[in-house]
Amino acid sequence: MSDPSFNRSQLEQLISRRFFYAPAFSIYGGVAGLYDYGPTGCALMSNIIQLWRNHFVLEEEMLEVDTTIMTPAEVLKTSGHVEKFSDWMCKDVKNGEIFRADHLVEAVLEARLQGDKEAKAAASGVAHTEAPTATDPAAAKKASKKKKSKVVVVELKPEEKAAYEEILAKIDNFGGPELAEIITKWNIKSPESGNDLTAPQEFNLMFDSSIGPTGHLKGYLRPETAQGQFLNFKKLLEFNNDKMPFASASIGRSFRNEISPRSGLLRVREFTMAEIEHFVDPDNKEHSRFDDVKDIKLNLLPAAVQLEGKTDITVMTIGDAVAQGVVDNKTLGYFLGRIYLFLIKVGINPEKLRFRQHMSNEMAHYACDCWDAEIKSSYGWIECVGCADRSAYDLTVHAKRTKEKLVVREQLDEPKVIDKLQLEVNKKVFGPKFKKNAKTVEDALLALSEDNLQKLKDELDASEKTSINVEGQDYELTKTDISIERVTVTEHIREYTPNVIEPSFGLGRILYSLLEHSWWKRDNDEDRNVLSFPAVVAPYKCCLLPLSGNSVFTPVVRNLSQQLRAKNISTRTDDSKASIGRRYARNDELGIPFSVTIDFQTVEDGTVTLRERDSTKQIREKIEVILQVLKELSEETITWDKVVATYPAFSAKEGDEE
Amino acid sequence: MSDPSFNRSQLEQLISRRFFYAPAFSIYGGVAGLYDYGPTGCALMSNIIQLWRNHFVLEEEMLEVDTTIMTPAEVLKTSGHVEKFSDWMCKDVKNGEIFRADHLVEAVLEARLQGDKEAKAAASGVAHTEAPTATDPAAAKKASKKKKSKVVVVELKPEEKAAYEEILAKIDNFGGPELAEIITKWNIKSPESGNDLTAPQEFNLMFDSSIGPTGHLKGYLRPETAQGQFLNFKKLLEFNNDKMPFASASIGRSFRNEISPRSGLLRVREFTMAEIEHFVDPDNKEHSRFDDVKDIKLNLLPAAVQLEGKTDITVMTIGDAVAQGVVDNKTLGYFLGRIYLFLIKVGINPEKLRFRQHMSNEMAHYACDCWDAEIKSSYGWIECVGCADRSAYDLTVHAKRTKEKLVVREQLDEPKVIDKLQLEVNKKVFGPKFKKNAKTVEDALLALSEDNLQKLKDELDASEKTSINVEGQDYELTKTDISIERVTVTEHIREYTPNVIEPSFGLGRILYSLLEHSWWKRDNDEDRNVLSFPAVVAPYKCCLLPLSGNSVFTPVVRNLSQQLRAKNISTRTDDSKASIGRRYARNDELGIPFSVTIDFQTVEDGTVTLRERDSTKQIREKIEVILQVLKELSEETITWDKVVATYPAFSAKEGDEE
Repeated sequence: MSDPSFNRSQLEQLISRRFFYAPAFSIYGGVAGLYDYGPTGCALMSNIIQLWRNHFVLEEEMLEVDTTIMTPAEVLKTSGHVEKFSDWMCKDVKNGEIFRADHLVEAVLEARLQGDKEAKAAASGVAHTEAPTATDPAAAKKASKKKKSKVVVVELKPEEKAAYEEILAKIDNFGGPELAEIITKWNIKSPESGNDLTAPQEFNLMFDSSIGPTGHLKGYLRPETAQGQFLNFKKLLEFNNDKMPFASASIGRSFRNEISPRSGLLRVREFTMAEIEHFVDPDNKEHSRFDDVKDIKLNLLPAAVQLEGKTDITVMTIGDAVAQGVVDNKTLGYFLGRIYLFLIKVGINPEKLRFRQHMSNEMAHYACDCWDAEIKSSYGWIECVGCADRSAYDLTVHAKRTKEKLVVREQLDEPKVIDKLQLEVNKKVFGPKFKKNAKTVEDALLALSEDNLQKLKDELDASEKTSINVEGQDYELTKTDISIERVTVTEHIREYTPNVIEPSFGLGRILYSLLEHSWWKRDNDEDRNVLSFPAVVAPYKCCLLPLSGNSVFTPVVRNLSQQLRAKNISTRTDDSKASIGRRYARNDELGIPFSVTIDFQTVEDGTVTLRERDSTKQIREKIEVILQVLKELSEETITWDKVVATYPAFSAKEGDEE
Repeated sequence: MSDPSFNRSQLEQLISRRFFYAPAFSIYGGVAGLYDYGPTGCALMSNIIQLWRNHFVLEEEMLEVDTTIMTPAEVLKTSGHVEKFSDWMCKDVKNGEIFRADHLVEAVLEARLQGDKEAKAAASGVAHTEAPTATDPAAAKKASKKKKSKVVVVELKPEEKAAYEEILAKIDNFGGPELAEIITKWNIKSPESGNDLTAPQEFNLMFDSSIGPTGHLKGYLRPETAQGQFLNFKKLLEFNNDKMPFASASIGRSFRNEISPRSGLLRVREFTMAEIEHFVDPDNKEHSRFDDVKDIKLNLLPAAVQLEGKTDITVMTIGDAVAQGVVDNKTLGYFLGRIYLFLIKVGINPEKLRFRQHMSNEMAHYACDCWDAEIKSSYGWIECVGCADRSAYDLTVHAKRTKEKLVVREQLDEPKVIDKLQLEVNKKVFGPKFKKNAKTVEDALLALSEDNLQKLKDELDASEKTSINVEGQDYELTKTDISIERVTVTEHIREYTPNVIEPSFGLGRILYSLLEHSWWKRDNDEDRNVLSFPAVVAPYKCCLLPLSGNSVFTPVVRNLSQQLRAKNISTRTDDSKASIGRRYARNDELGIPFSVTIDFQTVEDGTVTLRERDSTKQIREKIEVILQVLKELSEETITWDKVVATYPAFSAKEGDEE
């Protein structure tokens, strides 16, 4: 349920007024889905990134790489993105307006359900003012994505209502043909004009361009950072002294040319993501640090529950979830736990966080299992982190396409003796006989399975000749050309393509969710907004406030700000003419956790006051003491409660807070 | 002069072997001008970025923003990039090979000069083995950009030699027509084939794409981060409480679709840049912290010297350079000083750093003065930071195009009384009379200068009517339509468009230069590479080395590595089986400044050894002491010399170092 007291437009005003972020190119009329981060948003994002790097990369010595955004088409053809990275869109047949098909269906059906509810309420004489997305979790889940559809107050038949609710619960599971069927069956039209719609057609979500002056080398802007990591697999394995498992990581910009982006930072065309590719032995998905997370309880929403049209949450420890097969393996479970811990550190409310498993049709083309960390905001439940098991998909397709071996070679503890057929090609006769096709024929022979080799061998043994069909042509082969023998070999090396577990973070979505979860109004006063960011991600840790413009404060402020910088405590000096209380309020809006006030007493005895944002409590101590306390507070090595317990409270005049 | 002992291919091998960076998409055959950073390069880059942020953004409370890469065409049309952001290319008329025209001319003329030198040496019987780019600084400057041309040993006439040298010194000052003339006059052909070349034509260096599903909204990948900052000027000024001067800053990816990129990281199609836009009153380019930098001595190469065909350096303090008008103003001078200090902190050799002023034709279309910080490497002198005065160019063109006021409004200390002509339009008659052209005519009237208004007034007073020509059409005006009166007004507000001083950093170029400046070989041994990065930018600060794989070391290593992480000291654990000496050598190659070795004595008494990379000296102390020392060393708050003076030296067995 959404919090009915939550007023999103007030938060949006705050975000815009204090320049956390704003639509890009606004003086040119703006471009949907593109946003610029202002000083506060940019600092908040930097701090989230730094926290991510500490929590994941440094903590586990992951190999961070920074690869290019511009990607030649060939790479994304191989990865499957050129063919499959698309959404379904339909057009208004008359005015040409374009819709994302699934969002359109959702919007229309939700409006009809709302109309039904209002009609029934009117009939029973009960006023009904609730927002349409606030009542049904399944509908609320995707509310973010749709343009609201006009609500017509009409009662539905019970079977219609049931059908709509089922469609909404499963909406992510539908492709173009199913959406087409729904549109026809339920008579869905272009919402504003009422015109007919074209059948859904695929629209590829990658931005394309061309590289170099000839215009012949097509490129795309990457839709994810993952591919750059896969392509460097061999170098990374070598850098890691050939040890497995290991993880690479990457933080950077990616692009999706959304059909009709809405919902602010939640659906954008350009975004910063952070991705981990954890390479693991497919036969051993244990994780050495699994025990560190096994007792964490998560809110889980498995695929099976959703396919029944439900959204009930199961609360379970990660240990139990893996033991019971709800989560496939320990490495996947480990990362779900680590993701949870990261999000809590960032400041996400754990009660508004769940892990939802993908349904089979919903899964990306490369994934074999996937859990999304979804965070609840006023837009409903939104995917903010995906954690997919991409199996060996990517390394396999790139290896096949490039003929580069992307495998791990592992010394076996015990050599393995195996019995197998071995084919040898007689190079001396092969070249002259097959000429330019020699290489093709040889490759085809070497690629044969054990079974097919056996067939060839049987034919050769029986009739002295056999043949192979390559690209529609038959090539005859004799015992002079090839030999096939059964041999016993001792293998000392095991060769395998690793599987990949991929936690993938949409940092902008996390940042927006954090804004919602951190926002409150002091004393319910509309003009006293507070953003209670944890110190570690707050855009500035400290605000320096000289009591007035009196020049005696200037050297003190300069000196203090220099000392704060030297301690790496990011600081904003607010020397505007407003009262201290007014300035406290203004900096609470930026989420600055601590304020230091310099007054006439400071000039006399070298003490300053330190105020904490959420409690508004203060202490007054010598500058040296305050600096040390601030350092520990901003690194979160002590709590404010501890500080208050250690130093005597200081009472400011009441008026200061107004 | 290049250092003749410098062997670039050895450094390149090291860079590739230890995966600082590598050509992107190499398993797909690679794409010129695109590079991926591996774990070491990525960490080095992150640290350079963090240093930049501390040195510039935090130090001066700049307003950092993060704006989009994808930019609608309209914005870049207005900024002039669609028309002017291009290079000249020519094609081999027969085989279609494409060349960047200026680089081609350079390559061919340098080869001819080299041929001349070799011919003369042969004639005088002196062996001549020097590299062609090593002798002439003017030629060396741009050596990086060209594909080498075949050297034919032919003596030149003195006037030819002089002409070639002059062309090379001025090459950056030539546009397409001049290059065409040179190509014809000096008979320059396609170097490999000997075929004729087409006349140089312009090639725009921006990657283009289209935004959204209709394909109608054209976009470009930004060629610089600056435009995003200009477009947010109004919001930033407001965020800064309307105070001037102030600076915004941005760190991010930009793109240039180079014609034929070469020279590794020095000329790439996708790169990370860091830019500052310092907004300043055009009437007052003082800087409050100018005195902090005025005594710094810089190597300067002014435009006037280059236009004489020379490259002589003037060493001057920034104070003198501004006082003598060599550098235009104090703000520009201040930033040259800050750039210098930053580069030195990064680890650039000050003797290989100069500031070169742009010649007039070389300047970007938006700049009115520009100094490049050039760093010398084996490729010659390379621009790594540009520091341009963009005047009011960008804000003016965007304001004009969007009708959005991008100005500062400043309360005047003393109101200003001025006498001026004031035009008023009689709206009642204007609309009916001019119909759909009313707005156009009114705008044209309001845009008239004081002089032109006076002319209109004179005509009106004389003949009761006048006219104005708008877009080729005359509109008659009478005293009923408009009135023009001389009035006295008191202005309390001054309104102006700020000028912009822009320091712009190519971080990849700085990183590459740092690699060259940091690299040396211990005892001249080819297998003992050292990269002497300053601790603050080193990819890892510390290497943890357990003496062997013995399990007694495991808990100590885990515990130490956890404590190092808690202190934010990035660490690489090297528990491979090689000897300690071998591992020291391997980690010297990564530029890791400090190594901690855990041995059997550690298990007994809790002491470890700490070794410094450059001196190879060691101390042995309790873990707690070492941790504290390491923290200070990696933050550069103490020097290694100080550490050695404080703690007794520890001698490892000689063998350990081999």
